[in-house]
This record gives sequence, structure tokens and C-alpha cells, in this order.
Amino acid sequence: MDWAVILAGGSGTRFWPLSSPTRPKHLLPLAGPKSLAEETFDRLTGFIPPSRTLVVTGPSIAPLLISRLGLDPANVLIEPRPASTGPALVWATSEAARRDPSASVLALHSDWSVGDQDAFVATANAALFAARNHDRLITVGIVPSRPDTGYGYIVPGPPLDDTVRTVKRFAEKPDAKTALDLMAEGALWNSGLFAWTASRLLAEVEEHTPEIGPHLIRLAEGDVAGFFAGVGAVSIDIGLLERSDRVAVVPGHFDWDDVGTWEALTRVRPRDAQGNVAVGPVVFLDSTDCIAWSDGTPLVVGDLRDVVAVAANGRVLVIRRAQAADLKRILDALPADVRNLPT
Amino acid sequence: MDWAVILAGGSGTRFWPLSSPTRPKHLLPLAGPKSLAEETFDRLTGFIPPSRTLVVTGPSIAPLLISRLGLDPANVLIEPRPASTGPALVWATSEAARRDPSASVLALHSDWSVGDQDAFVATANAALFAARNHDRLITVGIVPSRPDTGYGYIVPGPPLDDTVRTVKRFAEKPDAKTALDLMAEGALWNSGLFAWTASRLLAEVEEHTPEIGPHLIRLAEGDVAGFFAGVGAVSIDIGLLERSDRVAVVPGHFDWDDVGTWEALTRVRPRDAQGNVAVGPVVFLDSTDCIAWSDGTPLVVGDLRDVVAVAANGRVLVIRRAQAADLKRILDALPADVRNLPT
Repeated sequence: MDWAVILAGGSGTRFWPLSSPTRPKHLLPLAGPKSLAEETFDRLTGFIPPSRTLVVTGPSIAPLLISRLGLDPANVLIEPRPASTGPALVWATSEAARRDPSASVLALHSDWSVGDQDAFVATANAALFAARNHDRLITVGIVPSRPDTGYGYIVPGPPLDDTVRTVKRFAEKPDAKTALDLMAEGALWNSGLFAWTASRLLAEVEEHTPEIGPHLIRLAEGDVAGFFAGVGAVSIDIGLLERSDRVAVVPGHFDWDDVGTWEALTRVRPRDAQGNVAVGPVVFLDSTDCIAWSDGTPLVVGDLRDVVAVAANGRVLVIRRAQAADLKRILDALPADVRNLPT
Repeated sequence: MDWAVILAGGSGTRFWPLSSPTRPKHLLPLAGPKSLAEETFDRLTGFIPPSRTLVVTGPSIAPLLISRLGLDPANVLIEPRPASTGPALVWATSEAARRDPSASVLALHSDWSVGDQDAFVATANAALFAARNHDRLITVGIVPSRPDTGYGYIVPGPPLDDTVRTVKRFAEKPDAKTALDLMAEGALWNSGLFAWTASRLLAEVEEHTPEIGPHLIRLAEGDVAGFFAGVGAVSIDIGLLERSDRVAVVPGHFDWDDVGTWEALTRVRPRDAQGNVAVGPVVFLDSTDCIAWSDGTPLVVGDLRDVVAVAANGRVLVIRRAQAADLKRILDALPADVRNLPT
């Protein structure tokens, strides 16, 4: 049967002061009236049922996630420590296999904005089919709409069939020039949307991922704490997909955004005629290409360009758009009593 | 005896959202820990006593002014309607004369920042002396430190004595080029600091100010409401000083600022090494020549230049410095529920 595994961790720094460790971005209504996590669950409706959807998250977020989304606690996997995407996906896949030995898994994140629901489901179905049909680890590669330097890329190789191609290589987040070259080369964005059969994923980890493979026995013993105590914090991309020769890619022709920075709101939210994005009680006067968010305090932005202004959770942030992409650096520079939001 | 008349009206728009009609700028601690009005009273200490200091203000501000500054309500003159500086100063001068027929009056505003207390008192004393000695209406002209386009100018004529000069002409707020020409010509800022004997002021108004003169009889009858119902709203400059030939000017060699816009904070407050001014819980990161004020909400300003950011009274304003000088235009463009501050 098809299972879904949703990664729902996050440190809550990218949308400060709206986000925080206990209010991470997937619980925020960034792309529309619903939170990104709710949108993610909606996206699976009629496709993979909640009973076969596992959510991996951390202890500080889990209670909120369960209550907000009405999740069955048995399907919420709480990581004892954050250890990147590798251990999380391996654990969840192993758990799906424990419940359903023939499980195929669709892996996705809880904080994406997706433009075309039908195309998403069609592509996800194609990926799951390819995972079984070719017995490979399937990545979904999004056809790029711009030379984004914030995403990793997948360069496809020769086709396996009409919809599936081999992977020539993975490329890390590129600089601006390399991003243009990658687009010209036909590279796709590495979305993090994956499909595999549980048996193939676990076999490949055993073979290629020394950071995780030797600790699989702990999961078989039901010792999750032991598993996480042993594994290395490695991403599934670096730890497995870039090492295995049983990887393939299915191109996805839909708008996809990981809503990684305030900047992303200009793509996932409507803009006014001057290119401004406003959420909440915001007034723009003579301003262009600005992003403003207020959770209640009326916010007036006058005669500015390319500025992000946020009033949320008892904090105000006003920052040039170009710098808003590196909020972690900003937060590191703030005194703790400013950085830490009131709970 | 010497009397002081302090003008303390104001519509409270220039420092929105910190100021409001019930929190006008002279009640705000704009230049330091005390409000501008408190600083104004401090400035008269040991010079003109509170018993001979009259304050002219409006009904919405008067109670706050009385309680905050511990004023004798008998010395607070409440205008039935705002009618510019002419009627206010004529009324207050007339009231001083009623209490003390030989009164000389020093007229000043409640919302100035003055850099040198000793020089201020020396100049004010010289102006009062000149008013009696030459029987003229004395203006204090501040020696300009920059070609400011926000102030009116006084072009001095031949001297009357070592400290007093005749007035060749008044110049309205100039454009940038004219301001430079005025400075080169030796013109002085028209500060609004005036001195006159009550008898001379009232005689000159009778002769030159048809907007006010015919209604002086109402004040003699104790009918203040009738006086204000009759007079035209005219400034003392246009209504009298520019028309009378019994005007003179005493130059003032002290830092003086009417703290008329957010911009003024860069002159009356300390700046950091990057030229930023911060009041309240403000953090500047990589920012230059910005002005930020918060009345409590932590405010972070990142990688911006020449921006004013204010979080106060449940509102946030972020605006280019050049536009902050014309806040009235901004406020006119705001919806009433944003413009009107919570009380």
C-alpha cells in the first residue's frame, strides 16, 4: 500500500518574529488562510489516507501539531533529537514497513506551497509507480521557473521510460552563474519529494549509509532512542541518494516552493500593482516590491522599496529584502531577550 | 515685571504614531528623558517664575498639561478654538497686562530643544531689555547652522545698538537655493522667541492687525469667547511682525530646534557611529542614518539607510526619512481606524 511520510521539524528561525521554535513555519498560514501543514494534509486528501500518513517531528512541536491538525498520536513519530532528514525518513519508512511489509512511501515536507494540486497528485502517483516498477529510489525534480540559488539541482541522465529518467548527478545549491548553467543543462530542482518501496530504501541504506545502516537493528528491536543515539545526522540526499546507483528522477511540472524565506511570500501570495505583498492590517504608501506582515498591529510602510517589515509576537523587524534570506545570521546577532519571543 | 507666555497647542500629527491630538509632541520626551514642555519650564527656572508664566493651550491637552507639569490652572489659558499664534499671543499678553499693567512678555513655544541654557537666558534677557529700551517688538533670530528649508528667516538691517538690529525683511520658508542665499546674506532663523511690552504689542495690533485689533475690546470686557469668535486665525508673524515698523531682532547664538519632524531627532539626540538614532528597545544591524523609536516592542532594523521606524501606541510606521517630514500627507492617506490611535 502507499504510505505518506511528512517531515514536520524545523527550528523556527526563517520567519522570525512570526516563527519560533514552538511556532515553526509549517504551522503558520504563510501561503494562504490555512497553515502550510494543513495545506499539506489537504493535498493528500483522497490520495493517501491519514491512517497511512506518518508525521515526523520534534517534542516541542508535536502536541501543537496533533491538536491543530487532529492527528492520531500513533501516527506522529517524535524524534528524540534532531538528526537531519536521513534518520527521520529511515525511521518513518521502517515504521511503515513494520505496519505494512509491502509499503511504498511518498516522502514530503510539511511546509511547501504547491500551485497545482492535480499535477502534484499525478506526479506523486507516477513517482510511487516508478519506485515499484523500477525498484529505485525516486526523486521528483521540479522544472525550474528561475535560476534559484536556494535549491539543490538534479541533472537527469538517459530515460528509463516515458516519465522516469536516470540521475546523472546532484548539484548543491549553486551560485548565480552556475544556476543559469544548470537550467540550460536541463537540471531540475531537488524538491525533497521522494518515493520508494520500504524494502528498497532499507536495503540501500544498509549498503550505502554507514551513518545509519549499522543502527537499523535498533529499529527492528523497537529501540528508537538507541537508533537516534547511534546514527549520524546526515541528510537523505548526501547520506544515500548521492551515493546509490538505484536513483531515478520524475520531472514535476507544477509550481512548487519550499517557502524558505520572507522573500518566498512574493511568489506564494498575491502582489499589488506595485509588487507589494501585505498580510494583515498593512497600509502601503508609495512603496514598491515590499513585503509586510502584521499579526494585529496596524503597520504603515511609506516610500520604501525592497523592504521586509514584520510586526508579530511582540516584535518588529524591518530589513532589506536581500538580507531577509539570511535571518539566522541576523538572529545570531540579536540579544537573547529580543530574539526569544514571548510564549 | 517680566512675564513668560508659552504656546502649547499643536495637532499632534508630526510625530505619529507617537504623538496624537491628546499626546502632542511637547508632552513627549523627544529630546531627552523629560518632555519638551518640562524642559521648557526648566529653562525658565530662576529667570521668570511660574506665577508669572502663562500657558496657552487647547481644551483636549490642558488637563494633561496641568497634571503633568503641576501648573496653576489660573495660569493656563484655554483657547476656545485654535486660531494660530496671533490671537493666542495677544490674549496672553492682554492677560499679563490685566494682572500687571507694566508687564513685559517673553513669548516662547513649549516644544523646542535648546542647546545652551545660559546663552538662551542671556539672549532672552537681552530681548526683554531691548523691548523696553527701544519700545519695539523684539524677535530673536537664531544664527543658522545649516540652510534649513523648514524655518522662516529674518534679514537684519542696520543696528540699533550693540545687540539689537532693525529688521530689513522677513522671508518665508525658502527653497534650498534661497536658503543658501539667505545664509550668505546673514539672515537668521525666525525662532518664534519674541519679547515685547504689553502696551506696545497691544498698540501695534490695534494699528496693524485688522484680524484682531477690533476685537481687543472683548478682552477688555473679559469676553474671551467673544474675542475668539471674532478674530481671524492669523500668525503673529504675518498678522503683525511683517506689517509693523517697530520690529527689531536680537541674534541668538545657541543651538535651537523646533523638533518639528522625526528628522529632528538626528540633531537633538545622540547618534551612534553609523549615524543612527535609537530611542527605546531598538537594535540596529548594518544600518546607517536611520531613526528608530519604540515605546516597548523590541524593534530590529537590518541593513537599511535613511529610514524612520517607529513602534508606538499600537502602531508601526516605517518610512523613508525624506518623506517623514511630510507626515500630514501620509496621515491624510491613512484609513481613520489606522490613523486614530487607541486612547
